[in-house]
Amino acid sequence: MIGNVSTVQLNKIIKKASKLIGKGKVADYIPALAKVNGNQIGIAVCDLKGNIASAGDARTNFSIQSISKLFTLTQALQVYEDSLWKRVDREPSGQRFNSLMLLDVEAGIPRNPLINAGALLVCDMLESRFSAPNFQLVEMLRNLSSNKHIKVNTEVARSELEHSSRNASMAYLMKSHNNFNNRVDTVLESYCHHCAIEMSCEDLAKASLYLANKGVSLQGQKILSQIQSKRVNALLATCGLYDAAGDFAFRVGLPGKSGVGGGIIAIYPGHFSVCVWSPELNEAGNSNAGTYALQLLTEELGLSIF
Amino acid sequence: MIGNVSTVQLNKIIKKASKLIGKGKVADYIPALAKVNGNQIGIAVCDLKGNIASAGDARTNFSIQSISKLFTLTQALQVYEDSLWKRVDREPSGQRFNSLMLLDVEAGIPRNPLINAGALLVCDMLESRFSAPNFQLVEMLRNLSSNKHIKVNTEVARSELEHSSRNASMAYLMKSHNNFNNRVDTVLESYCHHCAIEMSCEDLAKASLYLANKGVSLQGQKILSQIQSKRVNALLATCGLYDAAGDFAFRVGLPGKSGVGGGIIAIYPGHFSVCVWSPELNEAGNSNAGTYALQLLTEELGLSIF
Amino acid sequence: MIGNVSTVQLNKIIKKASKLIGKGKVADYIPALAKVNGNQIGIAVCDLKGNIASAGDARTNFSIQSISKLFTLTQALQVYEDSLWKRVDREPSGQRFNSLMLLDVEAGIPRNPLINAGALLVCDMLESRFSAPNFQLVEMLRNLSSNKHIKVNTEVARSELEHSSRNASMAYLMKSHNNFNNRVDTVLESYCHHCAIEMSCEDLAKASLYLANKGVSLQGQKILSQIQSKRVNALLATCGLYDAAGDFAFRVGLPGKSGVGGGIIAIYPGHFSVCVWSPELNEAGNSNAGTYALQLLTEELGLSIF
Amino acid sequence: MIGNVSTVQLNKIIKKASKLIGKGKVADYIPALAKVNGNQIGIAVCDLKGNIASAGDARTNFSIQSISKLFTLTQALQVYEDSLWKRVDREPSGQRFNSLMLLDVEAGIPRNPLINAGALLVCDMLESRFSAPNFQLVEMLRNLSSNKHIKVNTEVARSELEHSSRNASMAYLMKSHNNFNNRVDTVLESYCHHCAIEMSCEDLAKASLYLANKGVSLQGQKILSQIQSKRVNALLATCGLYDAAGDFAFRVGLPGKSGVGGGIIAIYPGHFSVCVWSPELNEAGNSNAGTYALQLLTEELGLSIF
Repeated sequence: MIGNVSTVQLNKIIKKASKLIGKGKVADYIPALAKVNGNQIGIAVCDLKGNIASAGDARTNFSIQSISKLFTLTQALQVYEDSLWKRVDREPSGQRFNSLMLLDVEAGIPRNPLINAGALLVCDMLESRFSAPNFQLVEMLRNLSSNKHIKVNTEVARSELEHSSRNASMAYLMKSHNNFNNRVDTVLESYCHHCAIEMSCEDLAKASLYLANKGVSLQGQKILSQIQSKRVNALLATCGLYDAAGDFAFRVGLPGKSGVGGGIIAIYPGHFSVCVWSPELNEAGNSNAGTYALQLLTEELGLSIF
Repeated sequence: MIGNVSTVQLNKIIKKASKLIGKGKVADYIPALAKVNGNQIGIAVCDLKGNIASAGDARTNFSIQSISKLFTLTQALQVYEDSLWKRVDREPSGQRFNSLMLLDVEAGIPRNPLINAGALLVCDMLESRFSAPNFQLVEMLRNLSSNKHIKVNTEVARSELEHSSRNASMAYLMKSHNNFNNRVDTVLESYCHHCAIEMSCEDLAKASLYLANKGVSLQGQKILSQIQSKRVNALLATCGLYDAAGDFAFRVGLPGKSGVGGGIIAIYPGHFSVCVWSPELNEAGNSNAGTYALQLLTEELGLSIF
Repeated sequence: MIGNVSTVQLNKIIKKASKLIGKGKVADYIPALAKVNGNQIGIAVCDLKGNIASAGDARTNFSIQSISKLFTLTQALQVYEDSLWKRVDREPSGQRFNSLMLLDVEAGIPRNPLINAGALLVCDMLESRFSAPNFQLVEMLRNLSSNKHIKVNTEVARSELEHSSRNASMAYLMKSHNNFNNRVDTVLESYCHHCAIEMSCEDLAKASLYLANKGVSLQGQKILSQIQSKRVNALLATCGLYDAAGDFAFRVGLPGKSGVGGGIIAIYPGHFSVCVWSPELNEAGNSNAGTYALQLLTEELGLSIF
Repeated sequence: MIGNVSTVQLNKIIKKASKLIGKGKVADYIPALAKVNGNQIGIAVCDLKGNIASAGDARTNFSIQSISKLFTLTQALQVYEDSLWKRVDREPSGQRFNSLMLLDVEAGIPRNPLINAGALLVCDMLESRFSAPNFQLVEMLRNLSSNKHIKVNTEVARSELEHSSRNASMAYLMKSHNNFNNRVDTVLESYCHHCAIEMSCEDLAKASLYLANKGVSLQGQKILSQIQSKRVNALLATCGLYDAAGDFAFRVGLPGKSGVGGGIIAIYPGHFSVCVWSPELNEAGNSNAGTYALQLLTEELGLSIF
């Protein structure tokens, strides 16, 4: 039993959730992601002591994509603390179709650090302080998950960069509002490398444990203060799933962060961190079977924060 | 000690938070609200056994305003269950200035039941089923708070109705999208009466306890199922504070619902419900000192869900 | 030859344009309009001396719908002169989908008097000054076209009123911004009666001649000053065809005003007024064959203002 | 007398309009423009035979800025003819604050070729066909105005390029919608060079004469077909003055194109072209005294197309 969850229960959840496979759609905006086999699903739970329970393809590496935004936000909080919030807000963004209008009307201040514009802003801030942002994020993730083999898939990174016009548009819009300090192409390169990091469910469950543990990592390091950890969880709960934050809170009821690679991490503060992965996405761009697996976890086991 | 909170602690919080009085602004869009003395602040906590701890003006009646939306939503869930979600969504709405555009682009489906458009829709649904929606909401609140003296301030209700053009605009917009079935003036009258109900912090802490207690009220009645209760809390966390849901989650870290009368209820699931009241509002339209009092409660006592 | 146009030419134009019949769609948002036979087309040109050349169904009555906006604007200019522009702007509105947002962001000031919101505002202004707005508009049109038989189709008017939720929404929105002074239902009734007036192409060509003649009507009356007439033509050119003003200017090159009944009037200042009618509409809500007929008139005969 | 306008009349107009100097504001977004002396005003009218009447600072060079958009549009029409309209629309854009949203919602198709996004698109199209877009535009303008001394102010061009983040944002947004084929930085460089061309009122009145003359230039060359010329004038009338097209049509009543350098060209088809220049801008970004001078020209001399 890991944080009230047994491997038997996880296997049941994976079996039940895997019935959704075939009803979603693997991300295809870049070739390197499109070729992933959609027929995979895994889950891993990590309790406060570092015990891991997992099921399915929990040790298969996948592209973490936007889950990286959680960790670059953490790095920025370590460096900038509350001054971060002068340059980025912390509200849900509403709908995708007016995101550029909001960014423009709101003077180049992104709605929150977990949407693309906000994460680009965070990368711009890290670029100003870090000597090697790409290396430093990989290093952080290796430490947090005690896995020295984590690395960037450079083919994916290059492909992301070739398809980054929309992100470039947002970065230049922020620059036009004087809220972007470094070269756009340099920051985009960091950003794309971060998205192209590959990890497994077990890696990510371990890496995000500090958010379940008042800011203290699996290795006993203070990654964030208790109050910062609480606040990041609040951000995950209101802004972590793009335009589907409300639906995710409603169905799953845990703070979480998703990526178009099909991964989702979720946090049960004081109890455990969990990562689920299944490559097919729903219409909101979140893992279809993965979201359902988390819903089963919280509804059937009564493990929600609500 | 009530849910880990003592009266001494509440008194300290009220004392500290009351220093913000004078820095906000009492709602003045209707005369009846504008004349409220801004120099008041109260808090009441209710634990799962119904024990109350309170401080300040916790027994003074105030206009519950949008806090009523939480209870009409509860009534609609009791009657319609999941079919409610065919007519209203459950996502944060983003910004105030584009709310009408969103309602129009999204075919008259309000973003969530806790913003004005959504609450009007809920009232329209209740109008279709209830013989006397105003009476039935007052009756529900009397039962939940064991206070037979709760009633509508008819002067406030009338004044609200006279200033309801914006709400009428939204109701007619939903009607033009075939998502509003009753007469707009009839529903607006109910809506305004609901907003004009007067209760105290102690009343509201008791009335909302079912959300901290898996759907079971102080009186032992099953108001909502456990899963419905979880979902309502999720909605409160992502949509309960207008455009400041993110900031409230960040600072307070509890599901909550505010009203322009200066009241805010918040829920710590499994532990307690709390209501704070202070009439002066911040720029987002939420109680200024009240929000701070809740922040103190959760930050200093470490009582957040995150 | 009427203003350089012969009946032979008009017959050719009607023959050519009628090939488009079957490719548009008769307005069907109210039953009374939906039952109009789409297989009709007519055109009438009126020169400065009042000579009429016409072809096709130029004497058949049809519902003038939004063409009425031109005449209520004229009435409002007669009464309010330049003070009208304190309450309504004179810019194109861009796209339909964000019209409510614009009206809200711009403090309830409609973009121009030729879109619905602006025409409702104009009707509100007339309501404040006129004893019987419906009667007075019919009377004006009877005078301008020397046809005492013009009247309102009360069945259409009643049907319009039953489907006026969207207009009610806009009127209440303006009221919430303190830019609407009379009862919304009273003004809506006027507005719907204006739309339901029935006239023929010949009637409308005569009625709008004053705009081709520096403000002086067919009967020699000064309806508007020369400068007002110029300005109304400018408004027709930039705002007269909903979201297709640019395309109409591009293809036709004359100031014009369309209605969903399938009528379009156009003005060649100093030369003639023209009215075309064919009930089927294109995607922008303007007469499909009618727009093409006007394009033929201006392109083949070289009669544009541009 | 040049196209019914005498030099005496122009001198009176300049004298009267110059009273507005001091009430506007010289463009200051780039240093090279900010240092222009605001105390200048000039006007030049060119009739169909090439006779010039002018007054004030009509021979002083100024930065043509967005007036260049008219000439790049002309070049694109020469090369692409109607296929141009597959990639750019021809409707007014409504308001500045939602321009990025429109561009995004409308799949990267700019509203018209006379706003920044549309002109960037036109430059992208020219880049695909022209070997030296900068040189070729200067050459065209030298020919049209019979002035071999016209050239780019490279200091202004460089400064524009350094302040082009907002334009880069729009170009990348179009690229993300697959409606931008060349490198963004290459196209931006062309675009900025075009804006930095310097000409006088007399040069520009001559250069734009073909639009008053059915597409035939002062030198007798067919620049556009008659129908293309009519259509470009229609575009100027509905889209030529940013968000103030309606107001310009209302006050001036001629097709026109403005630039933030303070120049405005206007066309009276069949009669004359005119260019006015005064560096101080009104709130909409158009020459303040210049707009008034054109209003005087058309109102006092009765020379409008309306």
